[in-house]
Amino acid sequence: MDTWLPSLITETPQDGYDLAVKLSRVAVKLTQPDAEIRDRLRPEYAQDAEALIAVSQVVATHFATVAAANGYWKPSK
Amino acid sequence: MDTWLPSLITETPQDGYDLAVKLSRVAVKLTQPDAEIRDRLRPEYAQDAEALIAVSQVVATHFATVAAANGYWKPSK
Amino acid sequence: MDTWLPSLITETPQDGYDLAVKLSRVAVKLTQPDAEIRDRLRPEYAQDAEALIAVSQVVATHFATVAAANGYWKPSK
Amino acid sequence: MDTWLPSLITETPQDGYDLAVKLSRVAVKLTQPDAEIRDRLRPEYAQDAEALIAVSQVVATHFATVAAANGYWKPSK
Amino acid sequence: MDTWLPSLITETPQDGYDLAVKLSRVAVKLTQPDAEIRDRLRPEYAQDAEALIAVSQVVATHFATVAAANGYWKPSK
Amino acid sequence: MDTWLPSLITETPQDGYDLAVKLSRVAVKLTQPDAEIRDRLRPEYAQDAEALIAVSQVVATHFATVAAANGYWKPSK
Repeated sequence: MDTWLPSLITETPQDGYDLAVKLSRVAVKLTQPDAEIRDRLRPEYAQDAEALIAVSQVVATHFATVAAANGYWKPSK
Repeated sequence: MDTWLPSLITETPQDGYDLAVKLSRVAVKLTQPDAEIRDRLRPEYAQDAEALIAVSQVVATHFATVAAANGYWKPSK
Repeated sequence: MDTWLPSLITETPQDGYDLAVKLSRVAVKLTQPDAEIRDRLRPEYAQDAEALIAVSQVVATHFATVAAANGYWKPSK
Repeated sequence: MDTWLPSLITETPQDGYDLAVKLSRVAVKLTQPDAEIRDRLRPEYAQDAEALIAVSQVVATHFATVAAANGYWKPSK
Repeated sequence: MDTWLPSLITETPQDGYDLAVKLSRVAVKLTQPDAEIRDRLRPEYAQDAEALIAVSQVVATHFATVAAANGYWKPSK
Repeated sequence: MDTWLPSLITETPQDGYDLAVKLSRVAVKLTQPDAEIRDRLRPEYAQDAEALIAVSQVVATHFATVAAANGYWKPSK
C-alpha cells in the first residue's frame, strides 16, 4: 500500500474530521482487500441505520486521536 | 461540503454537547450522502431503543473530545 | 431546550456519576424528541439485559469525561 | 440513593478494578430500579457470552478512569 | 479472590498486552463465577467471529490503560 | 508466543496504523489459538459489513494508544 497517512496534522478541525473518516475506512480495506466484495457490501450497510451509527462511532474514536494530535487546533499562545 | 466545523471551542458545556451531536451526525451523512435514504432510516432507528443508545454512545465519545478541547470549560485561573 | 448543562464540575464523584447518567439520556431525547415514543421504549429496554449494559457503557464514557473535568475529585494540594 | 461513591481513590489496582465493576453495575440499577426484574435478567445474561463480553467492556472503560484517578498506583517519587 | 493484580507496571509492551488480556477476562469471571458455565460458553464464542472481535475490543481498551500506566514503555530520558 | 511487540514506537503514522491492526488481531489469536478455526471464520466476517466495522473500531482504539505513545509523530521542537 502506498503512503496514505503521512501525518496526523491537519489545517482545520474539519480536515481532521475528514482524516478520521479516512482512518476508519482503511481498516476495512486492510481486512477485506477485495474491492469488489467491499463494493457489494457498501449499499447494504449504507442503508442500515445500526451500521451507519457504528461507522460514526469509529469515526468518533479516530477523531479523538486526530484532535489530540492537533492540540485541538487551538491557536498557540 | 461547506465549512461546518470551524472550531471545537464553544462558549458553554451545553453548546459543546450540541456540537458533539452534530459531529456524530456528519459521519452518517458522509457515509450515506443520499438525504432521501437517511430520511427513510430516521423514523426507524428513532423508535429503536438499541439504536438510540448507540447514538448516545457516539455523542459521548465526541463530547469527550470537545470537552477536552475546551479545557472542560473551567474558568482559567 | 433550556439550560441543562451549566457546568461539568460537581462536588462529589457520586454527583459526577449522576451527571454522566444525565448526559447519556439527553442524546436520546435529542434524537427522539417525542416523549410519548420514549416512554413506550423505556419499559422495553429496561427489561433487556443487553440494552441495560449498553446504557451502562454510555454512562462509563461520560463518567470518564466528567471525572477528568473534576480532576478526579482529588483534594488540591 | 445513599452514598456509594465517596472517592475514586483506592489502595491497590485490584481494589480499583473492583470499583470499576461496581461503577458498571450502578448504571444498570439506576436504569432498572426494580430489583426483582434485575434478578430475573441476571441468570440470562450471565450465560450469554456476548453479554459477558459487553459487561467486560464497560468495566474496562471505568477501570481506565479509576486507574487515571489513582495515577496508575505508581509510587510517588 | 486472591491478589491477581498487584501492579499495572510490566517490563515490556508485550507483557502489558498479556496483562490487558487478563484484565478483560477477570470481569467475565466476576460476573459469571461458575467455572463450569464459563467452560461451556468458551468454545461457543471462540468460534463466533463477532464475539472474538468484541473480546479484542475489550483488550484494546485495557491495553490503552496499561500502556499509559507504563509511560508507553519509553526509555526514560 | 515469540516476541511480537518489542515496542510501540514506529517511524511514521502509517506504520503506527499497521501496528494497531496487528494489535487488534493478536487478541483474536490468543482467544482462539486454533489457526484452522480462525481461517474458517475469516471469509465469513470479511464479508459481513458489521464485523468489518467492528474490526475497524478495535483498530481505532489501538491506534489511539500507538499514536499517543509516539507523541503523534510530531517533530520534536
